[in-house]
Amino acid sequence: MRKIEIYDTTLRDGAQGEGVSFSLQDKLSITERLDEIGVDFVEGGYPLSNEKDAEYFRRVQDLNLKHTKVCAFGMTRRKGINAADDPGMQALVSSGAPVVTIVGKTHDFHVTDVLRVTLEENLAMIADSVAYIVGAGREVIYDAEHFFDGWKANPEYAAETIRAAAKAGARMVVMCDTNGGSLPEEIAEYAAKAIAALTEFNVPVGIHTHNDGDLAVANSLAAVDAGAVQVQGTINGFGERCGNADLISVIANLGLKRKGYEVIGGAGYQHLTELSRFVYDTANVNRRNNQAFVGQSAFAHKGGMHVHAINRAASSYEHIDPQSVGNERRVLVSELSGRSNIVALTTKHNLQDDRELMDKILAEVVAKENQGFQFEAAEASFDLLVKRVAGVFEPHFEILKYHVEVEDLVEHKMVDLVTEATVKVSVDGEIRYEVGEGDGPVQALDVALRKSLNGCFPTLEEMHLVDYKVRVVNQEAGTAARIRVTIESADENDVWGTIGVSENIIQASWNALVDAIEYKLYKDEQRGKLPARASADSTAAK
Amino acid sequence: MRKIEIYDTTLRDGAQGEGVSFSLQDKLSITERLDEIGVDFVEGGYPLSNEKDAEYFRRVQDLNLKHTKVCAFGMTRRKGINAADDPGMQALVSSGAPVVTIVGKTHDFHVTDVLRVTLEENLAMIADSVAYIVGAGREVIYDAEHFFDGWKANPEYAAETIRAAAKAGARMVVMCDTNGGSLPEEIAEYAAKAIAALTEFNVPVGIHTHNDGDLAVANSLAAVDAGAVQVQGTINGFGERCGNADLISVIANLGLKRKGYEVIGGAGYQHLTELSRFVYDTANVNRRNNQAFVGQSAFAHKGGMHVHAINRAASSYEHIDPQSVGNERRVLVSELSGRSNIVALTTKHNLQDDRELMDKILAEVVAKENQGFQFEAAEASFDLLVKRVAGVFEPHFEILKYHVEVEDLVEHKMVDLVTEATVKVSVDGEIRYEVGEGDGPVQALDVALRKSLNGCFPTLEEMHLVDYKVRVVNQEAGTAARIRVTIESADENDVWGTIGVSENIIQASWNALVDAIEYKLYKDEQRGKLPARASADSTAAK
Repeated sequence: MRKIEIYDTTLRDGAQGEGVSFSLQDKLSITERLDEIGVDFVEGGYPLSNEKDAEYFRRVQDLNLKHTKVCAFGMTRRKGINAADDPGMQALVSSGAPVVTIVGKTHDFHVTDVLRVTLEENLAMIADSVAYIVGAGREVIYDAEHFFDGWKANPEYAAETIRAAAKAGARMVVMCDTNGGSLPEEIAEYAAKAIAALTEFNVPVGIHTHNDGDLAVANSLAAVDAGAVQVQGTINGFGERCGNADLISVIANLGLKRKGYEVIGGAGYQHLTELSRFVYDTANVNRRNNQAFVGQSAFAHKGGMHVHAINRAASSYEHIDPQSVGNERRVLVSELSGRSNIVALTTKHNLQDDRELMDKILAEVVAKENQGFQFEAAEASFDLLVKRVAGVFEPHFEILKYHVEVEDLVEHKMVDLVTEATVKVSVDGEIRYEVGEGDGPVQALDVALRKSLNGCFPTLEEMHLVDYKVRVVNQEAGTAARIRVTIESADENDVWGTIGVSENIIQASWNALVDAIEYKLYKDEQRGKLPARASADSTAAK
Repeated sequence: MRKIEIYDTTLRDGAQGEGVSFSLQDKLSITERLDEIGVDFVEGGYPLSNEKDAEYFRRVQDLNLKHTKVCAFGMTRRKGINAADDPGMQALVSSGAPVVTIVGKTHDFHVTDVLRVTLEENLAMIADSVAYIVGAGREVIYDAEHFFDGWKANPEYAAETIRAAAKAGARMVVMCDTNGGSLPEEIAEYAAKAIAALTEFNVPVGIHTHNDGDLAVANSLAAVDAGAVQVQGTINGFGERCGNADLISVIANLGLKRKGYEVIGGAGYQHLTELSRFVYDTANVNRRNNQAFVGQSAFAHKGGMHVHAINRAASSYEHIDPQSVGNERRVLVSELSGRSNIVALTTKHNLQDDRELMDKILAEVVAKENQGFQFEAAEASFDLLVKRVAGVFEPHFEILKYHVEVEDLVEHKMVDLVTEATVKVSVDGEIRYEVGEGDGPVQALDVALRKSLNGCFPTLEEMHLVDYKVRVVNQEAGTAARIRVTIESADENDVWGTIGVSENIIQASWNALVDAIEYKLYKDEQRGKLPARASADSTAAK
């Protein structure tokens, strides 16, 4: 088993991604999570660039990290001065980080035309900077920027730059595919050359890739197979342009595919899904459902043929056990699904032996799908459908009327729209009629409906809407097209989806809203959080 | 140059992706776009599985496709019957598709334990099915399911299955990494073995990968480098679980990285960005900003260091020229971003020489984009924005008020919703106040607005709405999220898109509707179909 170090730069290179930013506390929390799963190095920031990063390095020293070494990132010294006089160098030392990562130029064109120094001065900048930090008692990792493009353009000079870093005491040279356009076979070829150039110094190489060619993970693996011993990347592949190599995929491929590598230790793999979602949620970036290994759809099965096979042999359509990365198998209902999908989804209802009922449910799902329903993201509506078809659905409230109005009185110079809704319901025979306002008609209906149920179902206060999606089902019919609304609701324990379909967007939204509330009330009854009704269904006991 | 065929299965395997579904019209539109960029094969569907797919194959014959061959997908015949008696086989032939893709089992375990037939019967099923379709005068592509796992488990049997297909007349054998877990070096190794096993039949191999290991594109390239001559995948990597190989990345890597392959011809590459976005928008799936090659962030530069370098040498931090795939460079820290886009969009207004006006337009576009506007599918709204910023916009009617009501009187057992709108406008000082009904609030507003303009602008009768799309811009805020509505309108000559954004879906729709009508009236004035107003703008003459 060959040990491969994992170097995370989510907090520095990852934060260069469009729409990604972390607070100081976010950075500290992510550092702790990365330590927990056994990441070897965490690049915390660029201490010269901003005060938040400088403060991070002070605060991170108070964390009780068990495994991870924290790294500070910076560039080689400026031209024409001593390293000791360079504010960037000083900031790296005073960060207190035990490891310092210095990036320098490899590509002659960048030295002469972008940085605008001589080739000799660049070599001196690399050597001086590494030696200065090593002299301050820190480990130095040297990131060779534009390594592959540089080596192609001028292999002798590229080799000189990394040899300068190695000779000055860097513990490792990292080959950076800065533009992200290299191909795996190129990575392997130039990695072998870099390793050969550094043999006399006994300095190993690492790899840092970007995903501009959709090959960042493959390029990382190619470098490791060629002898690299460290992979730099980010959680979820955050990063500038198309992002960095996704460390989730790198770790899972290196560690779980029997390639003979030792990566993160212990229970780390089983926390990859949790880690991925934690980083998305902390960065407030939408999760990517089809993300390899950890996405919500990564082990979701839709086609009826596949689901049928999965019931016979779980490994038939799964490349690894979902639990090995902390993920789970999901079976989706869709027009492509057959009976076996429905059987799987209804497992919790204990109805599979009732073939007649199963046929009725399948027929109802097909009929609804023909109207434009999709139950994949609306499992709560599917559960209610099962109850309705089984004849055990008893609504918690009867809807008598709803009404919504939107008015813009432009001529009276009113700035705001007036949006209000009234809802009339009957709860156990008692009529309740309430009015509500909102930013839009759906919110106004939600406000009025909750107000009309006020006092009857106290747990509704825990519930809130987290997502609202609208899709036109048959787009050719203009404004009379059929509209599908999906609502995602949450309380402290669960997240559930409901759906409504209608030619009228208000009615579609209303139906999804009503399902969301009915599902919440059913759920709470079954868990004993709400008193069971005398007439309530007994599917749970069946 | 070695020719590599591109086989698109967005419409079949792509539709297995969670949240992806296409209407019949969507499938036909996507087929036309794929043909335009030079995709060689389009797998349109699985004719046995549902009526929509069967209808697709009838309708697609009316399209005037120039390059693409349409393929129908199906499985090998059922066990124990003649291929001619199998409904799936019959459906494939009667689809009329010139190419039929048949998937069969390669892995002995799947034959005996999932399909539950003997190894010999599986070979007969493959041979009979291929021979039957070839006998009906169609080309057959044979998809070898679980090819890599099957070959690892039992190489002799796996080879027999593909040799059976080749001997029966298949034009190609496609190696499917069905579970998506293979590594590039495995793909290369087994591809060489498959090619050797088929040499005597002179049948080449193709590759079909899934992205479960985040390696689908790399695996496709590895197979091609090993001798495969066809790549199967989907636009944007849509597909079950983690998706299929993203053909955008496959095409760009094979065709633009000087590997010596001939892929799609002519101007195809420069339409990849447009194609990617068209498929996202048609499926109403959110675009992925950091997607390789075609994402909005793919050439976006955020770090000050990089932007500085880009100003010195464009290629410093870009692996290819963004224009080569129809994408564009964006500089996120600078308001200069998008100027070239704006310049391009304003070409028809002849305003480029007016730098001050260009700056104002750019500032307004940036402000609108921050509110959630996107003008790519709403060029009519963009044209009106230019007129407004230039101070030459004069509305054809003044809006005084609109009001919309939706009411469902459930308690009175009324079957239909009541949906009505009133609109009050002033045209040349004359007040007009009208009421309209519709299937939904937007249609009711459309009816009332047109009624209130009745008689003033006779060409409005030619205009109708062809599409209506809704997207939630910031999805975390539940029903108070901001909503983007895009409307596509058409008359006998043109199709034009308009946009509205608001927290209130009614107002967003209304704004898009009003823009649609204003654009129509401006357009008709400029063409002399409506009399020019005394006060009308003169941008066209500038």
